[in-house]
Amino acid sequence: MSEPAALINDTFLRACLREPTSHTPLWLMRQAGRYLPEYNATRARAGSFMGLATNPQFATEVTLQPLERWPLDAAILFSDILTVPDAMGLGLSFAAGEGPRFAHPVRDEAAVAKLAVPDMERLRYVFDAVACIRKALVGADAQGRPAGRVPLIGFSGSPWTLACYMVEGAGSDDYRLVKNMLYARPDLMHRILEVNAQAVAVYLNAQIDAGAQAVMVFDSWGGVLADAAFRRFSLHYTRQVVAALKRHAEGRRVPCIVFTKGGGGWLEQIADCGADVVGLDWTTDLGQARRRVDDRVALQGNLDPAVLFAPPEVVAAEARAVLDSFGPPQRPDGRHGGHVFNLGHGIHQHTPPEHVAALVEAVHGHSRRLRNDA
Amino acid sequence: MSEPAALINDTFLRACLREPTSHTPLWLMRQAGRYLPEYNATRARAGSFMGLATNPQFATEVTLQPLERWPLDAAILFSDILTVPDAMGLGLSFAAGEGPRFAHPVRDEAAVAKLAVPDMERLRYVFDAVACIRKALVGADAQGRPAGRVPLIGFSGSPWTLACYMVEGAGSDDYRLVKNMLYARPDLMHRILEVNAQAVAVYLNAQIDAGAQAVMVFDSWGGVLADAAFRRFSLHYTRQVVAALKRHAEGRRVPCIVFTKGGGGWLEQIADCGADVVGLDWTTDLGQARRRVDDRVALQGNLDPAVLFAPPEVVAAEARAVLDSFGPPQRPDGRHGGHVFNLGHGIHQHTPPEHVAALVEAVHGHSRRLRNDA
Repeated sequence: MSEPAALINDTFLRACLREPTSHTPLWLMRQAGRYLPEYNATRARAGSFMGLATNPQFATEVTLQPLERWPLDAAILFSDILTVPDAMGLGLSFAAGEGPRFAHPVRDEAAVAKLAVPDMERLRYVFDAVACIRKALVGADAQGRPAGRVPLIGFSGSPWTLACYMVEGAGSDDYRLVKNMLYARPDLMHRILEVNAQAVAVYLNAQIDAGAQAVMVFDSWGGVLADAAFRRFSLHYTRQVVAALKRHAEGRRVPCIVFTKGGGGWLEQIADCGADVVGLDWTTDLGQARRRVDDRVALQGNLDPAVLFAPPEVVAAEARAVLDSFGPPQRPDGRHGGHVFNLGHGIHQHTPPEHVAALVEAVHGHSRRLRNDA
Repeated sequence: MSEPAALINDTFLRACLREPTSHTPLWLMRQAGRYLPEYNATRARAGSFMGLATNPQFATEVTLQPLERWPLDAAILFSDILTVPDAMGLGLSFAAGEGPRFAHPVRDEAAVAKLAVPDMERLRYVFDAVACIRKALVGADAQGRPAGRVPLIGFSGSPWTLACYMVEGAGSDDYRLVKNMLYARPDLMHRILEVNAQAVAVYLNAQIDAGAQAVMVFDSWGGVLADAAFRRFSLHYTRQVVAALKRHAEGRRVPCIVFTKGGGGWLEQIADCGADVVGLDWTTDLGQARRRVDDRVALQGNLDPAVLFAPPEVVAAEARAVLDSFGPPQRPDGRHGGHVFNLGHGIHQHTPPEHVAALVEAVHGHSRRLRNDA
């Protein structure tokens, strides 16, 4: 296609690229999730988390659920960050009430030697879900012509974050096994990360081919690394992924978001990795972060998800404080910054959905006022 | 006493105060702990963790165990960060294989109203342990006169970190209950923190009276707070504690260390809280941290405890990298910085003790070479 994909609301894509927008776009990490009763109903029908994620119809259904409730500015593919190592044959499962678990963790030289970029046919269910969600997102524009309601974001875990689960076999308190390998056998660690980087790039490009209009790399566990180790074992490989991404599709640039939880101290270095947008958790002041990157990238974040447990008026006040901290996107010198409002981490399963309504209203309303007053 | 307390090795105290030292002093958070077979033997005799902590003889025995193995430059009182809320009547216990738990968490207005600074008699076992350890630390100096082998560090949890456990009742993945109170009922949260700040100050001063030669405030959970909330709910109250501390005893200054895990982004603000030393976890580069605080405070840290799982030669190389990052304490302009070598968090229970030997040797040896080469 040479025509840009028609979108009724492209605010999210424009903010990612630091273009003017009439309001600050908003989506929520894990917005399709257990805090929504309709999600739990669909999951019950699917039988399991992987039953949900591997069925494009179910994945489409839950992806759209939060958009039916609130005017969120982006949809994100319903999937898991660990689909790639599952396709490598590590056997991903989710026991009830627990996190992810791999049946075949990668802990020795022989297991590392066997790792390879998986055949993307094994991830066909993801690309089918992307295509299916794109179709389901089509609405009618003001002239009654078919157009996408909002953009669809695809994603993957970062090479390092995938490696954490691949070596540990599950989540961890102390990352003892993966750090043990990192310090004692850096050669094995680098080999895993090279395979992961290639696999993640191929995987994200296939999501873009299937219709993802932006992609996000979740470096959920980059923040457990020591300063020098973060650069060598996480950021280096995230940069390889970003460099290998297709950056145009359907006549538009495909923005790339990199989110390192606990990575606020490395913001300048992450901002140099080639991504259009850097995600921040709630420990970093957004205004200071913006000054540190001098609007060379857009920023995504960064409300503490725990704020959503507070009464709606507190939710609204805290959301306004985040917007005020970033400030108006247009700077006095005429240049533009970009801000995508989000939480600093996934939404908690116990969040009252009506508090999300207060958040969406506050972000859209206050960000419009900020632009008018500027 | 007007004479300074005689110490055979006062390197730790001098580094805390940014005075010249012949080597970089070293101690390890949780250095008396489960990675030592002799600790486990004493604990078995004591019957439980609290049985160990509340018995001054046992506490003295385990405090000295790591010093018998290695020439560490400080001893730290064997105790727990949660003794103060236990003395408030919350009922602290440690189930086997689990973290701390309070029988009576503080979750509503009535429970908050009942909180008060505890009678320090209920913490007599701590002060008795301090006095007992000081006696046990006495050795003979080069002239055969009695002198303390190394200084003894006292400690407490920070007001915020105590509040986390008091409200949650135990450790937490998401700090949902305490953050809920913080956002929904900041008045209750502030009341808890005021009581905690007063209690922690009285408690640390009583440890100093009993013989603690330095004190450390562990803000283990400051890093879970959003940027603005950290200042209001954690640092503000830590500052109150520091301001209320006795700073001289036995003819010497009593240094105060403040450690906020995950607090690297707030380093400048923490360095302004009145402490002599700021502790850092491993995510912050020590050289950059030193430049940020411009040697206005000493720094403590910051090896990733997971490094100790690697072979001894890797442990030594990583320790040298931390020392090199800080650089020689004396600056080209003649001013002095201070560095206390430590881990960025407590030592893991599965650490091979022989790897600690490699660490101690590398830190002492390399830091002497750094000074000679400078």
